[in-house]
Amino acid sequence: MRAIRVGIIGAGRIGRLHAENLVRRIPGAEAVAVADVVEEAARGLAEGLGIPNAFGEPSPILGDPSIDAVLICSSTDTHARFIEQAAQAGKHIFCEKPIALDLEEIDRALAAVERAGVILQVGFNRRFDPSFAEARRLVQSGAIGKPHVLRITSRDPAPPPIDYIKVSGGIFLDMTIHDFDMARFLMGEEVVEVFASGTVLVDPKIGEVGDVDTAVVTLRFSSGALGVIDNSRRATYGYDQRVEVFGERGMVRVENPKPHQAVLSSEDGDYSPPLLHFFVERYAESYVRELTDFLSCVREGKQPPVTGRDGKIPVVMGYAAKRSLEEGRPVKLSEIDPSLG
Amino acid sequence: MRAIRVGIIGAGRIGRLHAENLVRRIPGAEAVAVADVVEEAARGLAEGLGIPNAFGEPSPILGDPSIDAVLICSSTDTHARFIEQAAQAGKHIFCEKPIALDLEEIDRALAAVERAGVILQVGFNRRFDPSFAEARRLVQSGAIGKPHVLRITSRDPAPPPIDYIKVSGGIFLDMTIHDFDMARFLMGEEVVEVFASGTVLVDPKIGEVGDVDTAVVTLRFSSGALGVIDNSRRATYGYDQRVEVFGERGMVRVENPKPHQAVLSSEDGDYSPPLLHFFVERYAESYVRELTDFLSCVREGKQPPVTGRDGKIPVVMGYAAKRSLEEGRPVKLSEIDPSLG
Amino acid sequence: MRAIRVGIIGAGRIGRLHAENLVRRIPGAEAVAVADVVEEAARGLAEGLGIPNAFGEPSPILGDPSIDAVLICSSTDTHARFIEQAAQAGKHIFCEKPIALDLEEIDRALAAVERAGVILQVGFNRRFDPSFAEARRLVQSGAIGKPHVLRITSRDPAPPPIDYIKVSGGIFLDMTIHDFDMARFLMGEEVVEVFASGTVLVDPKIGEVGDVDTAVVTLRFSSGALGVIDNSRRATYGYDQRVEVFGERGMVRVENPKPHQAVLSSEDGDYSPPLLHFFVERYAESYVRELTDFLSCVREGKQPPVTGRDGKIPVVMGYAAKRSLEEGRPVKLSEIDPSLG
Amino acid sequence: MRAIRVGIIGAGRIGRLHAENLVRRIPGAEAVAVADVVEEAARGLAEGLGIPNAFGEPSPILGDPSIDAVLICSSTDTHARFIEQAAQAGKHIFCEKPIALDLEEIDRALAAVERAGVILQVGFNRRFDPSFAEARRLVQSGAIGKPHVLRITSRDPAPPPIDYIKVSGGIFLDMTIHDFDMARFLMGEEVVEVFASGTVLVDPKIGEVGDVDTAVVTLRFSSGALGVIDNSRRATYGYDQRVEVFGERGMVRVENPKPHQAVLSSEDGDYSPPLLHFFVERYAESYVRELTDFLSCVREGKQPPVTGRDGKIPVVMGYAAKRSLEEGRPVKLSEIDPSLG
Repeated sequence: MRAIRVGIIGAGRIGRLHAENLVRRIPGAEAVAVADVVEEAARGLAEGLGIPNAFGEPSPILGDPSIDAVLICSSTDTHARFIEQAAQAGKHIFCEKPIALDLEEIDRALAAVERAGVILQVGFNRRFDPSFAEARRLVQSGAIGKPHVLRITSRDPAPPPIDYIKVSGGIFLDMTIHDFDMARFLMGEEVVEVFASGTVLVDPKIGEVGDVDTAVVTLRFSSGALGVIDNSRRATYGYDQRVEVFGERGMVRVENPKPHQAVLSSEDGDYSPPLLHFFVERYAESYVRELTDFLSCVREGKQPPVTGRDGKIPVVMGYAAKRSLEEGRPVKLSEIDPSLG
Repeated sequence: MRAIRVGIIGAGRIGRLHAENLVRRIPGAEAVAVADVVEEAARGLAEGLGIPNAFGEPSPILGDPSIDAVLICSSTDTHARFIEQAAQAGKHIFCEKPIALDLEEIDRALAAVERAGVILQVGFNRRFDPSFAEARRLVQSGAIGKPHVLRITSRDPAPPPIDYIKVSGGIFLDMTIHDFDMARFLMGEEVVEVFASGTVLVDPKIGEVGDVDTAVVTLRFSSGALGVIDNSRRATYGYDQRVEVFGERGMVRVENPKPHQAVLSSEDGDYSPPLLHFFVERYAESYVRELTDFLSCVREGKQPPVTGRDGKIPVVMGYAAKRSLEEGRPVKLSEIDPSLG
Repeated sequence: MRAIRVGIIGAGRIGRLHAENLVRRIPGAEAVAVADVVEEAARGLAEGLGIPNAFGEPSPILGDPSIDAVLICSSTDTHARFIEQAAQAGKHIFCEKPIALDLEEIDRALAAVERAGVILQVGFNRRFDPSFAEARRLVQSGAIGKPHVLRITSRDPAPPPIDYIKVSGGIFLDMTIHDFDMARFLMGEEVVEVFASGTVLVDPKIGEVGDVDTAVVTLRFSSGALGVIDNSRRATYGYDQRVEVFGERGMVRVENPKPHQAVLSSEDGDYSPPLLHFFVERYAESYVRELTDFLSCVREGKQPPVTGRDGKIPVVMGYAAKRSLEEGRPVKLSEIDPSLG
Repeated sequence: MRAIRVGIIGAGRIGRLHAENLVRRIPGAEAVAVADVVEEAARGLAEGLGIPNAFGEPSPILGDPSIDAVLICSSTDTHARFIEQAAQAGKHIFCEKPIALDLEEIDRALAAVERAGVILQVGFNRRFDPSFAEARRLVQSGAIGKPHVLRITSRDPAPPPIDYIKVSGGIFLDMTIHDFDMARFLMGEEVVEVFASGTVLVDPKIGEVGDVDTAVVTLRFSSGALGVIDNSRRATYGYDQRVEVFGERGMVRVENPKPHQAVLSSEDGDYSPPLLHFFVERYAESYVRELTDFLSCVREGKQPPVTGRDGKIPVVMGYAAKRSLEEGRPVKLSEIDPSLG
């Protein structure tokens, strides 16, 4: 079996994470090139992992006919453009979320992918977490009957820098977007309406740049089922990521894993450790699995487990939540994108 | 110490529960009379517990100068009237929730109580559950800092009969009302606005009588904190009652207790038993504690732990949720009762 | 149905506990008299609970033909004698553990019971704990197949006074005796050999009076299955009572219940409360159930769930453990009582 | 920093596991050669991981002056000999457990290591498990005060082939040996005496070859503290690995991790998945950490975290347990090795 030859575009934190997994953890693929606007970063990553080529721009990767697939890990504003170029170059594409913050750009990128007939998988890695995947499997298996209520709690350990928040598109497009994807993934159906509440309780600076840091979003699914997501930019006890699907015959819950199983009992009670710090630790396994799945889709010409449409809808949901918060009323997804009627 | 002499008005399920606790579990009080419109019921209860007097109406109790306090456990539509009469008779009053479904009636009853200077405690028993009381204590102690997000899950094991639902005032006034009280109790502050989503997923008959059986209610507190309550009329795995308060320095959670601690492990995994069936089992301890507290307030002339105002506000919240569901928009409590501005 | 008329012999801590349960929690029985060598104690208990008669010795109870059954809750050295007398008087007998510390006395008492044809139930209350009863039920149901290994952890929150320890018969006859009973109860078979290790780590005074405060006892059952009990006189985190039966198809475990379900999460980790303090709290339910069962055996003339033989064998096991510790070798039960061959 | 050059002796399951970790997970080291008596196996492993050299015997590795360290992963009967040869060749040594089943061979090997002044680390990987390491840290920190009772449960998912059991040295030297090491590691002190009970309940064939498959071993530590280990060759619910240290001020427990956190609740109760299957999954992290630690000791010339003596004493304990089982009495370690007095 020939190894799939992969180029990596973007050598930042997430690019490095994927590159390391590709080189160290995933058999059957070969990382052959890295590109980053900061050429030094590309070179550093390539050297550290023994990847033969490093470039200051993606074009040598896109122009190399021996390369089968690219991982787009560059900044969000470049994703759609690189997807279009990679599709035109006939490369299969793994792209980090979100595809873009502009819906027209997303549509153009998805159209390019469709024309080219290449595979596009969007980086909603949480679907590949063993616990969430098992929750989805149980729901799909009918173990809880028809789903009635979805609950997602998703809290970061600490807010990102204000400069990042400014360009992030706001909490719903930056943070809740993962939960919007999780909601569709777990329930196996579409959301038709959202109602968002938000407030600034963690850091007033976040409010000053026009965002909120604490939010509760209510979802209405097409079947009539309800959902609720709560987010915070800061949980002192670690990265809090829980889901629950309640249905006519039961419930599936996923609680947080712990860094270790030691518990101390004393006259003050029982103590166990805080949660894993953040996504790199919590979702380590999910990153390996999503890339493994992408590569097996490339190899077998299969439909990817997270499609371009799966990449787009959470962005629509993010805009609906944003409008809901601004206007203080529930907002239908079809108000944002009439094609989602 | 002279025993407090207590009359019980209403010999249905909850009247019987209080009577048994009074006779068997709570020292320092004496049940001296029971009244019920079904005189047989009053007599049966009195005989079973060795209570000396039984009547077909409350007036002999209210007219007996040796009686210090009454427990109003009759049907909801009689609560306000009996409160007024008992207050005029100078009796201290423990009244089951809700005081009434009509806000004017509530106001009249509370005014009568105030004029008479008697103690009125409303039966929001969940406050006296050892786990929820500890959660409140931890929040008040500052252990989690300023509260940011409240989550309450409250699901019954099975819906009540349709005939009951018809006259119940709807899910928000019948079921969520307990969660509205819990929200105020745990957060220690008032709710200013609610947004309610509801749906009929458990039993279409519930929809036919104009109610919903599955609901998610978002709360906005005066401090800006957010809350969310999810309700269902039917959880197959038992009576599901969980709360969580998340704040700037941590989180307090209360999970469900289990009927026993035995766990079976086999090649299929680990099995533990379903939850306690319903409120009689789950909240057994809370009923003893609420009555004990009421009696100690009577004895010491103290402010009761659940006041008349605490009895009224959840009714206002219920109407706000109802209007929110009907009109598809967030509703301020001040729209229902302008005095709550 | 006529109420069973019960006399209580012994008005100390455990006598009071049974008397309260009898009066307040158990229908179908009537406490008609209390006796205690300290007549004041008998009178105090009787008055507090509305029991009509109080005596300074048991003979008026034993001589009262209207009394059906007695609860023997006096000091251990009087148990066997009162059993014989009560049996001769034709009373059914509930007797606290141990029947006696002298095996011949036990045999005489059991013979008297047999001659009289009365019911004797011994107070191994832990069998009636809902969790342990469920564990036994699961083992008996075949859920774990043939049992292979039993583990019992049984640790008290604090040692009793030294004066008590001196006359207690030592840790194996005072404390482990409950675990010996639990071992037979859970496994449904007899122990043939024990090996005991013991040490003084909690309080040197315990060593000075010839006892140990920390012990590990290995059991060999007739089927070849193995068991292990570990005991300590002092667990700072509360009364630690856990059991586990491991077998060919799985395992049943019972963990400790908690006083409440509130958990606090902070940057230091998760905190939950210490265990219930001691047996009165931990086994509250079991005391109600054992007496209820005894009374239903009396009513229906059934074999009691804890027989005289069940009362004797743990004493034999206690002596075997004692000899094992003294002689540093495994000891067969048949060495202590040749009839157990 | 120059990479440490490592040769791997033995290309079986454990050799492969270490080789993969070395190549993929551990920076700062280079796997330069693999040797196995089955040269094909060495070559296969080397090719799969890009290791440049493969041999049918260890001598080319031992004779290569550019190699700093060797991992001895060959069959147990070759360990001591290869340790001696590697020490004479001046290589630092990581050797799988046990060093040997013959105590004189162990002593000779340790003497050779001492003469050569090289580092020898023995492969008791469980010490590096994050949960057990945390338990040890808590005990050492004084969090539970002076340790009183140690409990270890260690059960395999299924017995190895009978042909393996025949040459394994028996359950105490093959399986309990890990628990003997864990006992010393957690308690931070030596065992002076053991008492072993054993039985054949899993598979009669194991009895036919003179071994037991179910065992309980009681330990007495030098401080007087007690310990107990229970072992089974077959737990249907997975690889069961739990420890508990109970002490004067509290307790540390380590429960089993689960493969995922999803829990299903239904009217039958709560279900969670069986345990991780076996050591490769359960201790995956520990293998990476032990090798990382070994390499850092080599780099910094430090005392290894598991010494030659740590490798020897569990073998002595295994023989003491064996004799205890054969002779039905507690056996002192000094009876096996008088130097351990």
